[in-house]
Amino acid sequence: MNDRPLFAVVLSGCGVFDGSEIHEAVLTMLALDEAGCDYRCFAPNTWQARTIDHFTGHAAAIAGDEDNRNVLAESARIARGEIKDLKEFRASDFDGIVFPGGFGAALNLSDFAVKGAECEINHEVRRAIEESYKEGIVIGAMCIAPTVIARVLGKEHVKVTIGNDAKVAAGIRKMGAEHENQPATGVCVDEAHKVVTTPCYMLAGSIKDIAAGTRNLVSAMLDLL
Amino acid sequence: MNDRPLFAVVLSGCGVFDGSEIHEAVLTMLALDEAGCDYRCFAPNTWQARTIDHFTGHAAAIAGDEDNRNVLAESARIARGEIKDLKEFRASDFDGIVFPGGFGAALNLSDFAVKGAECEINHEVRRAIEESYKEGIVIGAMCIAPTVIARVLGKEHVKVTIGNDAKVAAGIRKMGAEHENQPATGVCVDEAHKVVTTPCYMLAGSIKDIAAGTRNLVSAMLDLL
Repeated sequence: MNDRPLFAVVLSGCGVFDGSEIHEAVLTMLALDEAGCDYRCFAPNTWQARTIDHFTGHAAAIAGDEDNRNVLAESARIARGEIKDLKEFRASDFDGIVFPGGFGAALNLSDFAVKGAECEINHEVRRAIEESYKEGIVIGAMCIAPTVIARVLGKEHVKVTIGNDAKVAAGIRKMGAEHENQPATGVCVDEAHKVVTTPCYMLAGSIKDIAAGTRNLVSAMLDLL
Repeated sequence: MNDRPLFAVVLSGCGVFDGSEIHEAVLTMLALDEAGCDYRCFAPNTWQARTIDHFTGHAAAIAGDEDNRNVLAESARIARGEIKDLKEFRASDFDGIVFPGGFGAALNLSDFAVKGAECEINHEVRRAIEESYKEGIVIGAMCIAPTVIARVLGKEHVKVTIGNDAKVAAGIRKMGAEHENQPATGVCVDEAHKVVTTPCYMLAGSIKDIAAGTRNLVSAMLDLL
């Protein structure tokens, strides 16, 4: 049978400005595979808050427009089609769950980019995090995605990092969580809550920092198993 | 000043079924950065041959449809917005040029997926390859993308690999090029023409094979500088 640790990777679209940050998502998968873990991709079956033309930087569509994009269908691009609707996720089947960053975390998984500390969380994302916490599996998040964890587990006073952005850190504290400054490839480990976070492109200068950050994140998650 | 070798990475969209294979593209950038090289991303400013819903696997749009997607705009997702129209590429500014795979190479950069050995090549892609060859910079390609190199440089009897697929290899020979079988992470080096190719997802089993293949490709390209 298979004794490799199994992780869920939760995507939020495909592209830094309206979905998952692609480098962070791919390098999370690489770090898991290179560490001897298996992974399954998930994404909520919902509409993007907006669709951004990544060449011009302008909005091509917003929620409600016919040509707006679906989070699950776009996330499937990063997963090469091998992805499931997040509503099928069961924490008891996994050793850990990881959330790559990108604006999708703050626009589609939550609306932190719009509402800050008062943000709402997609209901399947909230369920997945609450179930993971209750089940005691490891929770990882990078870049801006720790804000989602902070919103759901703030009542537990979870500790996370998004690097050193004072405004975002203040939002995290307002949600009841603790924020710890970390450098680009540093990892904040909250052993008590089994939550591990790293800044990635909140601070990273180039793609090799993302590879280092995701490797460090996966290594810290494995230490908590 | 900057003595780091500089590579162009030519993308063909964003997603294995209608654009660049995302893992191959990202891990090419990582391999270049980790090897101490810089890179600039390019893509042709043209419409995709088709747009595939990567969750269902079905065509969502074909060329001419209003909701079909643009190769440059989609490629910009992988490049985090830092990308130029391929018409701005000048071979004399670079030490090498690399083509990640994915169906985009056989649908958008060429129409090899439809016409096989009689395929036509996007005119800016053809110019970029011919100019690179004439200038003597290193040319790299992976997965199905070596078919594009074979079509443009077949008259020079260039040698490439796409792994061991007999039908595609026959198409490559029909275009005047030579095909050499290689395993998933193996590299075919044509020293005379400065062309380096590797199979990646034509054979790879998991993402760590793609990281190994792209690292091997970049290493072989640097050996030719």
